[in-house]
Amino acid sequence: MDSKNINNAITLRSKNFTQWYDDVIKQAKLVHYAKVKGTIIFTPNSTFIWEQIKKEMDKRFHNYEIKNVMMPTLMQYSSFNLEKKHLEGFAPEMFFITKKSIDGEALTDPLVLRPTSEILFCYYFKDMLVSYNQLPFKYNQWANVFRVEKNTRPFLRTSEFYWTEMHSIHSTKKEAEEFTLTMNDNYVDFINKFLCIPILNGEKTENERFAGANHTFTCEALMQDGQALQCATSHYLAQNFTIPYDITFRNKNNELEHPYQTSCGLSTRIIGAIIMSHSDDLGLVLPWDIAINQIAVCVLNDEQDIVQYASNIKTKLEEYRVYLDFSNNSLGFKIKEQQVLGTPITLLIGKNEVNENKVTLIFRDLNNKQEMNLNEFISNIHELKQKYNNRLYDKAKNRLDNSIEICHTLQEVKNAINNKHIALAPWGGNIQDEINFKKETSISTRCIKSTIDEKEDIKCFYTNNKAQYWIYFAKAY
Amino acid sequence: MDSKNINNAITLRSKNFTQWYDDVIKQAKLVHYAKVKGTIIFTPNSTFIWEQIKKEMDKRFHNYEIKNVMMPTLMQYSSFNLEKKHLEGFAPEMFFITKKSIDGEALTDPLVLRPTSEILFCYYFKDMLVSYNQLPFKYNQWANVFRVEKNTRPFLRTSEFYWTEMHSIHSTKKEAEEFTLTMNDNYVDFINKFLCIPILNGEKTENERFAGANHTFTCEALMQDGQALQCATSHYLAQNFTIPYDITFRNKNNELEHPYQTSCGLSTRIIGAIIMSHSDDLGLVLPWDIAINQIAVCVLNDEQDIVQYASNIKTKLEEYRVYLDFSNNSLGFKIKEQQVLGTPITLLIGKNEVNENKVTLIFRDLNNKQEMNLNEFISNIHELKQKYNNRLYDKAKNRLDNSIEICHTLQEVKNAINNKHIALAPWGGNIQDEINFKKETSISTRCIKSTIDEKEDIKCFYTNNKAQYWIYFAKAY
Repeated sequence: MDSKNINNAITLRSKNFTQWYDDVIKQAKLVHYAKVKGTIIFTPNSTFIWEQIKKEMDKRFHNYEIKNVMMPTLMQYSSFNLEKKHLEGFAPEMFFITKKSIDGEALTDPLVLRPTSEILFCYYFKDMLVSYNQLPFKYNQWANVFRVEKNTRPFLRTSEFYWTEMHSIHSTKKEAEEFTLTMNDNYVDFINKFLCIPILNGEKTENERFAGANHTFTCEALMQDGQALQCATSHYLAQNFTIPYDITFRNKNNELEHPYQTSCGLSTRIIGAIIMSHSDDLGLVLPWDIAINQIAVCVLNDEQDIVQYASNIKTKLEEYRVYLDFSNNSLGFKIKEQQVLGTPITLLIGKNEVNENKVTLIFRDLNNKQEMNLNEFISNIHELKQKYNNRLYDKAKNRLDNSIEICHTLQEVKNAINNKHIALAPWGGNIQDEINFKKETSISTRCIKSTIDEKEDIKCFYTNNKAQYWIYFAKAY
Repeated sequence: MDSKNINNAITLRSKNFTQWYDDVIKQAKLVHYAKVKGTIIFTPNSTFIWEQIKKEMDKRFHNYEIKNVMMPTLMQYSSFNLEKKHLEGFAPEMFFITKKSIDGEALTDPLVLRPTSEILFCYYFKDMLVSYNQLPFKYNQWANVFRVEKNTRPFLRTSEFYWTEMHSIHSTKKEAEEFTLTMNDNYVDFINKFLCIPILNGEKTENERFAGANHTFTCEALMQDGQALQCATSHYLAQNFTIPYDITFRNKNNELEHPYQTSCGLSTRIIGAIIMSHSDDLGLVLPWDIAINQIAVCVLNDEQDIVQYASNIKTKLEEYRVYLDFSNNSLGFKIKEQQVLGTPITLLIGKNEVNENKVTLIFRDLNNKQEMNLNEFISNIHELKQKYNNRLYDKAKNRLDNSIEICHTLQEVKNAINNKHIALAPWGGNIQDEINFKKETSISTRCIKSTIDEKEDIKCFYTNNKAQYWIYFAKAY
């Protein structure tokens, strides 16, 4: 890393959270703005993070027997016609290709850039499927998708983003419903364990569902500014697409049936969630598994025994990503650099460390120096890394738990959002009530916590009707 | 795999090579046609092959300190204006986005889908670069790119394809030229060793160069029908882009300079080259490292000791991709299935094999049965796999070597192309001569073998001028 790029230009979170986010992204070199409005360049540092996410998710998909495919980006606009809600949901967001090549004629059926790929998969499924014994089909693709966005922010909302989108069809409703939940559980586990982010998990209300789904399950994380961020969603699509797109199979009794469909997705938006969950005023704080450098070894100077000692540490930790900083920058500068990058462990090596066979180490989240015998450090690295991840998770979990307030009135909900960020409140409104409430307050339903028993006499805080659900409310990205 | 998809519907190569190619692709389930003309679905089998190529290439890029980034797909059409040859080369092939969203207004500066990303990288380089000590910049991206194509064929020519595109800038001409050659060498090594494909390697003539390059180096493979296929190219772009796009840095003397640029690429087209280099009338023949199943273990029946014996083989070969076929299909059917898929080694396990602690094995390229002691097979697997790859390479290399004829006249060149496929002939024509020759004969220059010494009195076979180069000529995909 080049010295000119390090400075203390990170705004405090408490001062201006939005500016802090932009500063961290800039200082940690995660994004570069591209010429077309709303598009970004994923630099080596953010591409690396996304590649680690892909690797881990592919491992998990493999265990679920989900296979990767690559679908085309171009779709006929007319192919959307058959599922009305899906079309209505996505039509305003699509980029239109109206001619091929500079001198081309206008296309009568314009092409659009995929905003999501349910329909592409529908045609594929339709062509492939004959009999029940082929099912289930479970496919994933790592793809770039496109949505016209007016207000864009790096990772959080861009005209083009990258994601995993999994699509499946099943011979029975039960199996498809269960698989939707399995995929949801997989996301929860992945986000909790791999990214150390605690979440609220549950079903979306009708108003917040995926366009075309009967059920949408969501993972909602709480950012440090008190806003929620939707990290991943799993959808049960029932036969909403398989009937109009005429996907059929012969069941065991040789009768024609329409299969039951699911889809789910997790996008590069998650990088924004990682940043705003863990990072601090010094820069990025990254979970172990996605950190660019997991351990940085910074030497005080380039004396031969010091350099040798540092190199030796790298050799002994070959299964980890160990970065050796042998530059002639000051030790303070080197430490700052690793802080900005979010490196979990920074080791400082000078004469003392060599003579006493020890390391001075700084955990990124704790930011204080401690000493440890070198052999002890090497042999305990697995435990140290696990503890580091646990601390990241626990800190965010405490924040989440302390942000939730149970409310029964509109005023309580508003106060809770202002003071604690998340309101857990009884809801009995319909979709129009929810639209109105969101418009009035900028507060949205994040997910359903639980269903309220019919016998219980609990009123909706907004409509005063009988409440049906306990729902988490928050402002959201 | 589903039994209904296996049949003998592969046309013989000798009968109709084009149909053979389509049949193999269909039977091995590599491609599914999508709704938009010229676009294809990469099925699990072809996606898997591409993923193995990515993994290997990423490892190599890592050694060259090339870092992955992800550039946007959308470009302003006007951004192409500054490099005229590049614009002229790509303008006819670009997809135009003229509005955002269904009700959007016409864009005054239309967007296009990247046909290649030199210009995207130019803007990135320009913003990032200040001083010589930052250089070189070496970036790769795994991306989908888009080109309007009239006649499309799976893998070989499609409106959207996937590739690795590497882009670099350097502080000196010498370093950039050398790096172009290093990247070319890397491709040669990768294609030879990983894909077992022998190639002709050399520089392209001016007419066949990348639009905007001073030098283009190419890897040309010979397909079994005698046509050449360009597999990968490396370009030295000099300052052709860095001057008009105003990319500058301060050199050691604190003077402003324009850096020297390179780019190179290898696309999913290579899958077509793999198919047409190695495969036969029974289906795919895949090099070891990209095979979906490296070893298939097919059992004669489901008797417990047979199943146990087969499972045990898989356990012992855990570092390889071993597929166990415990289905109740016939052994003949199972063998055919692995033949179609191109599995390098198929093991047949029945009572005899169990009793005598042996395996009956079929190498995909040899297609005959041989017996081997089980322990010998397990302990020699590394050698067996190397020999398998070597046989694939050697077979293709013999074919290539035997296809080349040295020619001195136009008639000799035409005869050589018809009878042996590749003509090595002296050329002294200019770019217009080359265009005319290609138009007249459908024969194109593939690459320059060597420069002819000025003192030598060798005439161009086409113009009768003094010849400058020995050039390989062929018909090409």
